[in-house]
Amino acid sequence: MVMQTAVLHGIRDVRLESRAIPVPAAHEVLVKIARVGVCGSDVHYYTDMHIGQYVVNAPMILGHESAGVVAAVGSSVKHLQVGDRVSLEPGVCCRTCYHCKRGRYNLCPNIVFMATPPVDGAFAEYVAWAEDFVFKIPDHVSLEAAALLEPLSVAVWAVQRSGIGMGASIAIFGGGAIGCTVVQAAKAAGATTIIVVDLEPFRLEFAKEFGATHTINAREGNVLEQIRAITTPLNGLTGSSAGVDAAFETAGALITCRQTIEAVHSGGVAVLVGLPPDPMVSLDIVAAASREVDIRGQFRYANCYPAALALLSSGKVNLDKMITKRYALSEAGAALEFADTQKKQSLKVMIEV
Amino acid sequence: MVMQTAVLHGIRDVRLESRAIPVPAAHEVLVKIARVGVCGSDVHYYTDMHIGQYVVNAPMILGHESAGVVAAVGSSVKHLQVGDRVSLEPGVCCRTCYHCKRGRYNLCPNIVFMATPPVDGAFAEYVAWAEDFVFKIPDHVSLEAAALLEPLSVAVWAVQRSGIGMGASIAIFGGGAIGCTVVQAAKAAGATTIIVVDLEPFRLEFAKEFGATHTINAREGNVLEQIRAITTPLNGLTGSSAGVDAAFETAGALITCRQTIEAVHSGGVAVLVGLPPDPMVSLDIVAAASREVDIRGQFRYANCYPAALALLSSGKVNLDKMITKRYALSEAGAALEFADTQKKQSLKVMIEV
Amino acid sequence: MVMQTAVLHGIRDVRLESRAIPVPAAHEVLVKIARVGVCGSDVHYYTDMHIGQYVVNAPMILGHESAGVVAAVGSSVKHLQVGDRVSLEPGVCCRTCYHCKRGRYNLCPNIVFMATPPVDGAFAEYVAWAEDFVFKIPDHVSLEAAALLEPLSVAVWAVQRSGIGMGASIAIFGGGAIGCTVVQAAKAAGATTIIVVDLEPFRLEFAKEFGATHTINAREGNVLEQIRAITTPLNGLTGSSAGVDAAFETAGALITCRQTIEAVHSGGVAVLVGLPPDPMVSLDIVAAASREVDIRGQFRYANCYPAALALLSSGKVNLDKMITKRYALSEAGAALEFADTQKKQSLKVMIEV
Amino acid sequence: MVMQTAVLHGIRDVRLESRAIPVPAAHEVLVKIARVGVCGSDVHYYTDMHIGQYVVNAPMILGHESAGVVAAVGSSVKHLQVGDRVSLEPGVCCRTCYHCKRGRYNLCPNIVFMATPPVDGAFAEYVAWAEDFVFKIPDHVSLEAAALLEPLSVAVWAVQRSGIGMGASIAIFGGGAIGCTVVQAAKAAGATTIIVVDLEPFRLEFAKEFGATHTINAREGNVLEQIRAITTPLNGLTGSSAGVDAAFETAGALITCRQTIEAVHSGGVAVLVGLPPDPMVSLDIVAAASREVDIRGQFRYANCYPAALALLSSGKVNLDKMITKRYALSEAGAALEFADTQKKQSLKVMIEV
Repeated sequence: MVMQTAVLHGIRDVRLESRAIPVPAAHEVLVKIARVGVCGSDVHYYTDMHIGQYVVNAPMILGHESAGVVAAVGSSVKHLQVGDRVSLEPGVCCRTCYHCKRGRYNLCPNIVFMATPPVDGAFAEYVAWAEDFVFKIPDHVSLEAAALLEPLSVAVWAVQRSGIGMGASIAIFGGGAIGCTVVQAAKAAGATTIIVVDLEPFRLEFAKEFGATHTINAREGNVLEQIRAITTPLNGLTGSSAGVDAAFETAGALITCRQTIEAVHSGGVAVLVGLPPDPMVSLDIVAAASREVDIRGQFRYANCYPAALALLSSGKVNLDKMITKRYALSEAGAALEFADTQKKQSLKVMIEV
Repeated sequence: MVMQTAVLHGIRDVRLESRAIPVPAAHEVLVKIARVGVCGSDVHYYTDMHIGQYVVNAPMILGHESAGVVAAVGSSVKHLQVGDRVSLEPGVCCRTCYHCKRGRYNLCPNIVFMATPPVDGAFAEYVAWAEDFVFKIPDHVSLEAAALLEPLSVAVWAVQRSGIGMGASIAIFGGGAIGCTVVQAAKAAGATTIIVVDLEPFRLEFAKEFGATHTINAREGNVLEQIRAITTPLNGLTGSSAGVDAAFETAGALITCRQTIEAVHSGGVAVLVGLPPDPMVSLDIVAAASREVDIRGQFRYANCYPAALALLSSGKVNLDKMITKRYALSEAGAALEFADTQKKQSLKVMIEV
Repeated sequence: MVMQTAVLHGIRDVRLESRAIPVPAAHEVLVKIARVGVCGSDVHYYTDMHIGQYVVNAPMILGHESAGVVAAVGSSVKHLQVGDRVSLEPGVCCRTCYHCKRGRYNLCPNIVFMATPPVDGAFAEYVAWAEDFVFKIPDHVSLEAAALLEPLSVAVWAVQRSGIGMGASIAIFGGGAIGCTVVQAAKAAGATTIIVVDLEPFRLEFAKEFGATHTINAREGNVLEQIRAITTPLNGLTGSSAGVDAAFETAGALITCRQTIEAVHSGGVAVLVGLPPDPMVSLDIVAAASREVDIRGQFRYANCYPAALALLSSGKVNLDKMITKRYALSEAGAALEFADTQKKQSLKVMIEV
Repeated sequence: MVMQTAVLHGIRDVRLESRAIPVPAAHEVLVKIARVGVCGSDVHYYTDMHIGQYVVNAPMILGHESAGVVAAVGSSVKHLQVGDRVSLEPGVCCRTCYHCKRGRYNLCPNIVFMATPPVDGAFAEYVAWAEDFVFKIPDHVSLEAAALLEPLSVAVWAVQRSGIGMGASIAIFGGGAIGCTVVQAAKAAGATTIIVVDLEPFRLEFAKEFGATHTINAREGNVLEQIRAITTPLNGLTGSSAGVDAAFETAGALITCRQTIEAVHSGGVAVLVGLPPDPMVSLDIVAAASREVDIRGQFRYANCYPAALALLSSGKVNLDKMITKRYALSEAGAALEFADTQKKQSLKVMIEV
């Protein structure tokens, strides 16, 4: 029994290939994939064959934002059955190390994560996956939105790491797919002032639709002054010094990394969701430290799919609206090409399998 | 210069009296009161002249849910000016004790709290109050809603104490004024399953309007079984044992106190916002403890007005809709009588000064 | 290949029996047991054949505080080898449920826990156990102390749940084996005022040796007044109202359960490590709630063995000193009988296998 | 009534001057100063007349680590009386701003802090200070140690910010006065592996006396490799990847700032107590963020004097041993000169008033 897959062989070289349909182990289910989102990391592997220390040394199937229908179940599977519509959390951890035991399994050094070399991803007709990382979705949730629980989980983790809650003021640097899911997750968590900063009007417009209360085009005026002007009247006498309670870097640039830290008031939190392209970053760490602005990075997420699914099912977030364009699995190369070259006009590209 | 006030002299004995208009101290503002909500504690003093250890030994002005307009400012006031529309946080703490220093000033043993004997409340034309416990409100917020920031702050604190966030499931026992503000605060904080339990269809209807996703009439069927049935499908394989993440007691009864603890899954949180009428309560503490269900009480709130105001200003909560009936200050006795006798038909009674 | 075991057949009926030596699975190690502590729960099963909902319906091997030497390793074991001296964490969780995923595996409904029916314990010559719940100990740590990492883990969890740290004041109700390990763990965590309350001078004497700064014989004077007198001068102006930061119930009585809550100052924490004999407990929940004293129960522990081992290895705690008497495995019945009847003269009975 | 003071007039220019003895306000006490420690910031003002944004524009009295005896009390003082031996917390906050209300008063923008321009410090015979920032010390605590509650409070806050507890492994970069108090505070909080890194054998020797379990001379071998070698065997199977749970920068250098972040395992915490001399620091923020190593700065401390005093009174820390040399108030200039030039041979210089 074979299935079709889209395999990355080299820079901008994705080929359709037949592979054997996997057989689910005892605790696994076999999922017939229906939709897979194209993530920035997929594009990065497509254009560079590596991301930092992760190098694609052998042909690899891309894609890790996936949803589909259960086609078969392993012998010990208890909670899922054939026909269930499901979303797949793409990382399966070792369950025994220091981090897994403490519930922070995203830091597991032994994690098997889709489309991170050398593990194959979901640009394929079938995937066999551990039952407890497969989530049944309600009937009213689309498979397309279900695939996007993955980037929403990134946003949920970012918001959880920030510690914000009811009445919070936040700034988000970057209004792309991650920025827009952070807008929605933060709004769902109680943020009432949500400032999004980007260079592209297209993205700022989307950010507003998703719940941004203020948008700033970074080309126009001083970004930090504008953030402080927005937050000062909010704070007043019993307020803090100007600045937001938390800021999120999702743009992956040096300048926004710095601004994320500066936009936060004393005692606030800067969350680095995106990462600057160069490892060595020159920051005014003295100013950050002496204002007790905590700097928290992020590596994927842990235990966020249930919350992300609850937000989606309840209508608190809208993921369908994020999809800019759709491609068939056989057009995977074109999908990646579009996602790479049309960044300014595109939030999320979706593969229909 | 004199003003009119409504003074409690004895059980069900409220009299209109003239008092000298207070003069604001250096850090105080004088507020011309516009609206004051009637709280359950006001009603309790009206009918019993005491609440637990707090006894009304001398004539006392009731009311602590107030809003108005700044009429004069003390010599050191910096952040407010005459004409500002404001909401008053009714407790001014000592600022120097263990609890004040640590930001939990609601536990300050020296706190001066409106309408808690022997401190006079806001059923009066004017109140002089410490600048940092007076919050300026935006133009689009009504003074009536602003007065109700007080019960909303109770709800904000309850939700903060519960630790819930995005995607949480909760149960609220009691759908009165506090229950309905907890519904709204919890929804704003990310709860996606909000179950309200009450005996009165009137209240359950309101709870639904405010955001309850499920309502249970405690007269119909087994309450806990219904809660477990609602939460089980939510949890699934990676879910917890049945039960909500957090439950809130707002009804002030023995049975609901017990149910609050039982409704929570292992490792969850039971928040006691209301209190049973008798101090000694018979609880299955063994079951609670061996499931690590944390039991957290509540005494008022600390640092919740800013968040409550942000929720109100942003439209995340609706406080105007809670008002059942309005009375003039001169009708304060009638207002208290109505609030006492029409509990089943009433959420919140408002005094117009 | 057979081994000797001590099997509980009925009330006060423990028999020596031969059983097949278990064969370790791929991720398991086979441990030749050297020492097993006798826990209060072992004694309870010995005298009653049940603890609450847990009933011994078939012959069961008791004992869950064990240490020994690795005798064989499964095919996938990586971190242990034959000859390693080890301590066994007695509960192996399912690794896939809501609680396991979140690092709170003590609440796992599928946990396999030694000597909790129907799972056999460690009163045996050999036990096969999952590698990641087996901890290698340094040469200078005795196997006897290593067996007692189990009750120490209970204490570590209790102290972690209390949230105390440097400079804390605490009260511990009950100076038995658990009380004395809580003394040591709390001292290691920074507590500087450690008050132990018990009825037996023998235990109070031990508590002092382990680090109690004050002891109170509950037969002499008013316990709460004494605690308040000790803590008042500590607190002073910037201190709290009298009372300790956290209190621990380890005696399992109704009166101490109440006192634990009352001994804590406003905003403090009461940890219920022990449990009263009857499920329905009459508590002044109104007083607790209105002082925001959090009540936290405890069910075993999660991720505490590494910390407990670090405390033991560093010399911060002394577990050897807790052993009152030693018995051979063949004398298991006598050991349980002694532990049951000589509670007032005994902290910990040890089985030498 | 005049008193003697030591006033900084310019670079390396400290002059003895007479000033009027201050009169305590209603809530203040007048303290006859007995001992004042010389802090690195005092030395910095002495040699540069500024620290970052803080510039000495007018003659200023240095010194903020002080203790003495109450000589007079204001009219409203309740908790102190003439003759009490006391330690002075050197910052008095505004009590009304966002940060003060939330218990994090070290971030108060209106704080009045001794020897931070333009506020005079404690190199004087008398200081009048707010009652609630003055702590009575027990008879057995020396005034010299009481003065050093200030640097100990810095260490207590650093350890609290790190979140470490029982069984933690830590690394401290810099073995000076702050490094050595962090050693002691961390040990008191339960750390069992305490690695100190410095260039000076004198300091490493002291660090060992205060509780360091390992010392590394940064001139000898690769620091990070040594830290990983120490921590790897501790962690084992259920351990984390190599690295400490938390690391503390106290040396104020670029290289140690980087090492602090690198020394921590995934999910750990880097606390920046010291600060590098230049504001813009080049860090591998990508590596830190993708390992979720939190970076937390520090600005003084909040609510740490009570805990610091408890540690000191209980004998958990030893501050007397830190004093290298003593000078009279009239020799303040010589004391500052010594502290500046003999850093490698000196931990703490003390002024006897």
